[in-house]
Amino acid sequence: MTTTFSDLTARIAQRPAVDSGAVAAAQQRNGTLTKPPGALGRLEELAIWYAGWRGQAAPRVTSPQVIVFAGNHGVTAQGVSAFPPEVTVQMVANFQHGGAAVNQLAKDAGARMDVHAIDLDRPTADFTQGPAMSVEECAAAFITGWDTVDAEADLLVVGEMGIGNTTSAAAIATALLGGTGADWVGRGTGVDDAGLARKADAVDRGLAANSSRDPLDVLAALGGREVAAMAGAIARARCLSIPVVLDGFICCSAALVLHSIDPDAIAHCVAGHLSAEGAHARVLDAMDRPPLLDLGLRLGEASGGTLAIHIVRAALACHSGMATFAEAGVAGG
Amino acid sequence: MTTTFSDLTARIAQRPAVDSGAVAAAQQRNGTLTKPPGALGRLEELAIWYAGWRGQAAPRVTSPQVIVFAGNHGVTAQGVSAFPPEVTVQMVANFQHGGAAVNQLAKDAGARMDVHAIDLDRPTADFTQGPAMSVEECAAAFITGWDTVDAEADLLVVGEMGIGNTTSAAAIATALLGGTGADWVGRGTGVDDAGLARKADAVDRGLAANSSRDPLDVLAALGGREVAAMAGAIARARCLSIPVVLDGFICCSAALVLHSIDPDAIAHCVAGHLSAEGAHARVLDAMDRPPLLDLGLRLGEASGGTLAIHIVRAALACHSGMATFAEAGVAGG
Repeated sequence: MTTTFSDLTARIAQRPAVDSGAVAAAQQRNGTLTKPPGALGRLEELAIWYAGWRGQAAPRVTSPQVIVFAGNHGVTAQGVSAFPPEVTVQMVANFQHGGAAVNQLAKDAGARMDVHAIDLDRPTADFTQGPAMSVEECAAAFITGWDTVDAEADLLVVGEMGIGNTTSAAAIATALLGGTGADWVGRGTGVDDAGLARKADAVDRGLAANSSRDPLDVLAALGGREVAAMAGAIARARCLSIPVVLDGFICCSAALVLHSIDPDAIAHCVAGHLSAEGAHARVLDAMDRPPLLDLGLRLGEASGGTLAIHIVRAALACHSGMATFAEAGVAGG
Repeated sequence: MTTTFSDLTARIAQRPAVDSGAVAAAQQRNGTLTKPPGALGRLEELAIWYAGWRGQAAPRVTSPQVIVFAGNHGVTAQGVSAFPPEVTVQMVANFQHGGAAVNQLAKDAGARMDVHAIDLDRPTADFTQGPAMSVEECAAAFITGWDTVDAEADLLVVGEMGIGNTTSAAAIATALLGGTGADWVGRGTGVDDAGLARKADAVDRGLAANSSRDPLDVLAALGGREVAAMAGAIARARCLSIPVVLDGFICCSAALVLHSIDPDAIAHCVAGHLSAEGAHARVLDAMDRPPLLDLGLRLGEASGGTLAIHIVRAALACHSGMATFAEAGVAGG
């Protein structure tokens, strides 16, 4: 563990606990609302969870922030993507001009959206040959993410763009959860069978070329700048008591790094959706995070997490806006 | 078949077909948007389905309408609910004062919400003793629903309130899909084991007391005024080319009546969510309608369908708002 990683470890460790008084007050309120007990299902759990992290019995979601990080990956040299690496910078321009799916979803959800392209002209090294990033590069990307979180936000969604990064995410999952590349790779943006085999092989060679299984070492060796930045943003949100909605497979590989350091490090995170990328379900299982949505999305760019903002906001709208049995003069069950 | 039901049959039969030109145009557009093919999963299907019913290649959802119908049920005499029948009128007041879950959800979704209490002082007859409604009463409730749909709406959600109506819905499902009451009853607002047994028994006696399995006869004999009104509103939305988001078990029992007349009668309907009421999944299967959401809701009052408005609107926001590969200068896959 280098000095630089000690800094990251200290940042991750400075996390506040949930406000148990707010949880209790939210639970008490939930029991008085004009509905049969439990009839709002996961909306009730979500509202109580959110209330706990915000430290209020009856909060609302009013200022969600969506951050999309982009990075380029040296492992694309192994033929792991259906799209050429130039698409990363082209899609960043599309984000900046408002043309991508996440732009529409963020606008529709009333969320502020920020895009951070991180050193796109400096792809990570090909991890089949050695570490993708130095410790310093990884730490810098983590802190870039850390610094992007708006302290005034009350819900955060992080996502990514980076041609080649489903291979990076699969490598992280393999290193931290076990098995071989074939267990964790998927078709990403749409590779054929040969591409899928190349992804599995690249992951296996990446694990052979990078032996440490310390979570931050894995992030540096097999991750990407956008993955490290997502981890930094998730950790920063915790310091600011901002609940986080996780996006798909790649976002969850960043969360998995934090979870592998300490499961409590992502206690403020909920899974926004289940991606069609096959291994996502098992990463969510490993983190004990049942998804809110399951609509077959596999786009990344924070799209599924941003769609799930609606669910979290609706949960709080019910929790904080409904009448109680006493207020409404309705007979209890 | 009486003259009155002939009128309903004629209304249900006057439905327009989907606009196949709009479907083709929407499919074509979908293939050019800046995302890998299929990467938005069910959002892509939803957008194309909606475009077809609206007759436009790139529509938006701007004016959703939520309608909650309420009715009282004579079968409550059989001890089938955890709540007393007075709660129906109390909850209608709660809807009118803005205190119920669906009020918060409709407001959060930017939807117009209407409440129609139908003859609450005149519960249906106890269907264990004979038909719940006469043909004339059933037809009047259907037409009440028919007349409530706003022709300017571009998405419709229908839902209900009626103590005892999960028993009515289970009876409709049993009559139209087979089996016995025990196969289709659930805990509703929260009955205990003895209450569950009373529900199953009431359904079995209801089927014995009402022999016709013609779908509209079943609606009259085992349904309720709010159930007939939902069927009428769904049928009217079709005539107006307004796509419909179905709510939970009771709403789907109304859709099932139409589906049993002709599956095409609900081609303009999508399932908003999967209710925790156990038999809902099998009713959706019977209608071949996979749900958009699965969040353990079991509240009725259009809550799950209203929550799903966000998903439909987001699908169209992507479909109609995203840049194409050509517009954005992004290399295709």
